Amino acid sequence: MTSEYHQTIVIGAGISGIKASIDLTRNGIDTLILEARERVGGRLYTIKSDSGIPMDIGASWFHDCLDNPLLHKAYDQGHIKFYYDDGRFDIYTKEHGLVDENHHLQAAADEIKDYLKQICMEKYTPETDVSLREACLDYLKLKGYTLTDELIRYAPQLIRYYEMWIGSSWNALSARQVGTDEHFGRNAMVTNGYITFYNDELDELASVSGFSKGTDLIGSKIRLNQVVYKIRFDDQSKQIFVHTRNELTRLETVYRCEYLICSTPLSILKLQDTSAKGAIEWQPPLPSDIRAKLGKVSFSGLGKVFLEFKNCFWSKETDRFLYLPEPDDELTEAYKTGKSITFEKEDKEIELTSSPDPFKYVVLFMNLYRAAGVPILLALISQPLTGFIEASSDEVIWKFFKPLVRQITGKRWTSNPVSIHHTNWTHDPFSRGAYTGVSVGDDVEACINALKEAKGIFDDKGRVRFVGEGIIEQGNGCVHGAWLTGKREAEKVVKLVNRGKL
Amino acid sequence: MTSEYHQTIVIGAGISGIKASIDLTRNGIDTLILEARERVGGRLYTIKSDSGIPMDIGASWFHDCLDNPLLHKAYDQGHIKFYYDDGRFDIYTKEHGLVDENHHLQAAADEIKDYLKQICMEKYTPETDVSLREACLDYLKLKGYTLTDELIRYAPQLIRYYEMWIGSSWNALSARQVGTDEHFGRNAMVTNGYITFYNDELDELASVSGFSKGTDLIGSKIRLNQVVYKIRFDDQSKQIFVHTRNELTRLETVYRCEYLICSTPLSILKLQDTSAKGAIEWQPPLPSDIRAKLGKVSFSGLGKVFLEFKNCFWSKETDRFLYLPEPDDELTEAYKTGKSITFEKEDKEIELTSSPDPFKYVVLFMNLYRAAGVPILLALISQPLTGFIEASSDEVIWKFFKPLVRQITGKRWTSNPVSIHHTNWTHDPFSRGAYTGVSVGDDVEACINALKEAKGIFDDKGRVRFVGEGIIEQGNGCVHGAWLTGKREAEKVVKLVNRGKL
Repeated sequence: MTSEYHQTIVIGAGISGIKASIDLTRNGIDTLILEARERVGGRLYTIKSDSGIPMDIGASWFHDCLDNPLLHKAYDQGHIKFYYDDGRFDIYTKEHGLVDENHHLQAAADEIKDYLKQICMEKYTPETDVSLREACLDYLKLKGYTLTDELIRYAPQLIRYYEMWIGSSWNALSARQVGTDEHFGRNAMVTNGYITFYNDELDELASVSGFSKGTDLIGSKIRLNQVVYKIRFDDQSKQIFVHTRNELTRLETVYRCEYLICSTPLSILKLQDTSAKGAIEWQPPLPSDIRAKLGKVSFSGLGKVFLEFKNCFWSKETDRFLYLPEPDDELTEAYKTGKSITFEKEDKEIELTSSPDPFKYVVLFMNLYRAAGVPILLALISQPLTGFIEASSDEVIWKFFKPLVRQITGKRWTSNPVSIHHTNWTHDPFSRGAYTGVSVGDDVEACINALKEAKGIFDDKGRVRFVGEGIIEQGNGCVHGAWLTGKREAEKVVKLVNRGKL
Repeated sequence: MTSEYHQTIVIGAGISGIKASIDLTRNGIDTLILEARERVGGRLYTIKSDSGIPMDIGASWFHDCLDNPLLHKAYDQGHIKFYYDDGRFDIYTKEHGLVDENHHLQAAADEIKDYLKQICMEKYTPETDVSLREACLDYLKLKGYTLTDELIRYAPQLIRYYEMWIGSSWNALSARQVGTDEHFGRNAMVTNGYITFYNDELDELASVSGFSKGTDLIGSKIRLNQVVYKIRFDDQSKQIFVHTRNELTRLETVYRCEYLICSTPLSILKLQDTSAKGAIEWQPPLPSDIRAKLGKVSFSGLGKVFLEFKNCFWSKETDRFLYLPEPDDELTEAYKTGKSITFEKEDKEIELTSSPDPFKYVVLFMNLYRAAGVPILLALISQPLTGFIEASSDEVIWKFFKPLVRQITGKRWTSNPVSIHHTNWTHDPFSRGAYTGVSVGDDVEACINALKEAKGIFDDKGRVRFVGEGIIEQGNGCVHGAWLTGKREAEKVVKLVNRGKL
């Protein structure tokens, strides 16, 4: 079997792989990108509704606008439309409808946030870590004497807003780490498709590669449908052999390279069952330290559901509608009576035959009418609900959301959606979730460090570099974080190559 | 001249001095408290209006409720009434009246807050520090391209909310340090007089001292009107001589002790002119390092004005009304044209003959109708306005506030107040301001450390300890911070005494 040689192979044509490829190419290093899916972009993925409205199934926001290196670039390029969705934020419950500020709910939840940030981070190790739900009980034990009954019941529900950032439920979220989720400035929602930004990067790659436009790269510098299933190091030739299977033709191909940039999601990297779809067998295996650290990081499942209606029949004045679940009676009782609770530490799948009660989940509705002038409510959900919704029919999905849409509109009636589009990341074998999360017992920092160092792989010359949203502290889980890892690791390869030349 | 001997003398009968005295007494160490004023309490000072409403001229809040060690105690004692004033918070400007959330003003100001916290803290040293106002211009240069014209003009005005925390204007506030002002949970306003809490502590001191009630201590263990003007160490006897002058009788007295706990405000400690009222001459002088560090800390001037009306004619639904100053045209122009500004770095006195324009200042009105059911608007102001207001007649004061009260009530008319009461800390020779602040170039941390260590004083045996709100990181400027320093330093003296016994 012959094999195609490139100095560097990049696995994955997401934003981190593209950025790495740009920087390598600019430094005269030959790169080839292997992409498992039949499209580029990875978790930047914009689709269009029948009416032509762009909808981001992948990332939606430029986060951390204060130090997001892509923001100024995007403004300069002038192709992206932004909306800062940080105007009116309304909170709803089944009991209250719209919750007035004078319930002091936000203030009490902010205190729980301080508790997580200032107490839990110190108090717990990955070994002693507890869930966000358990931390809420601990908080109540500490500060419940200052709270009204209403706050005791509802403040823990509002802190579940974290579920909307990370995509796991409070049963799974790590009390030790959820509070480390710091923000650096505002968040800018992209309203004309995040792929616009990706395409600008792709054009940049084309330009530095001598192609006239990004799409020309497909089939040449970027190969689609190439599912990597084995990465083998040959100690004689000191080359890395990348084995792929074509998703469509089942054709197997082998590529050779000296340097490898791996941008598969951590969910893929941490797969232990090498027969699972998308899994990669490393020969020789990745060092046990790296494998152990990969066991200390989770992939969560933020879900997005675009409910498109004929018209906007909800408030045009509210950016975000947060529906809060009904109080957790077991938690309240445990606080009041001292009765103990057996806390789950992970999200358990919701059976597809069941009918989950919508009033038990936290759902954040983004008002795309305000953001983009389109009659869409974008519902954000977290695991385990995401897994259920992503596998359900439109009928089941609408049955779930309908009562909540009624709540946030305050109306007894609601139109039916003209279309429903949603994410499928939890069932996508090449992502197996939405992005890196923080579950009970995780040690994200340790995993980041292990993958940044990437020591002991193959001949330990640093040939294998890992990139992606999960492998960075500041910008973790974000597009700019992923982009920065591409930049960071390309720089390392450039140094290695240049050192080799001397 | 004979002199009265006590093992320990505590200068100041504020909360830190009382707490130190309680802990020393409980450990069998004889203490005497010398108080300069004709009342105890220091900057815990509750007065009553003619109609009997308690008004706190000193501290009003239990801050940092998540780790405030006094909160649980106060709840247990059950004497204090609290109100959590963190419900509806409304922002007003002259231009908009009530500012709608959809102006995104809070979001933009939060980004400036992130800028201060995450960039300025790193960027500046005490030597290169700039004012909050200058930092706002720098922020605009960095992020103005993402802001609407309205946000460019108003977001810097909202970040001036810091003036209400610290009591200096944005001309004086340190960009490097203002963002370090972290909060640990909610803030609980005392509605029945903070002196209630002080009196409980005083009763505790009475109890451990063998007196039946706190007031019995006055004249015995606590001496009023004793203005300390000299502290002298006698190297032969190894005793500290504390010289006082009676405020009323001019009678001079000398006390002797082995240990001294000094709770004078830092504003007093940093006085260089020993002839100034309240100033203390140290013989031998305090070490030059301590004096230098005292030069790196400022005292600010939060002012409080209680506007008592016959009835509540403002919204009963709002906890706090924040009046934002009109935009700073010089700043906006500097951002837009690049024209440079000469920034002031301190607050300059407002001449008493002038008529300051109320629309140029940030004023926070606390709605005491919501907090305590009384028809009072409590206006918080900062320097240099505080100095002006505290020296002005009620007529001048009302002339200043009247247009602002109209703004926040949205009414063309307003009743006249039936009484006006206000702070006088900036003109009080024994406080010379309200509490420790953070001015441009300050190095609060260094000063705290120098005073905590208190090295090189007299025979360097650690006989002199400093306590008070300014000498602690967490809880700085707060009642519980002051209390904690009393506890901390008493512990050190107890150790020294016990070591001496061995």
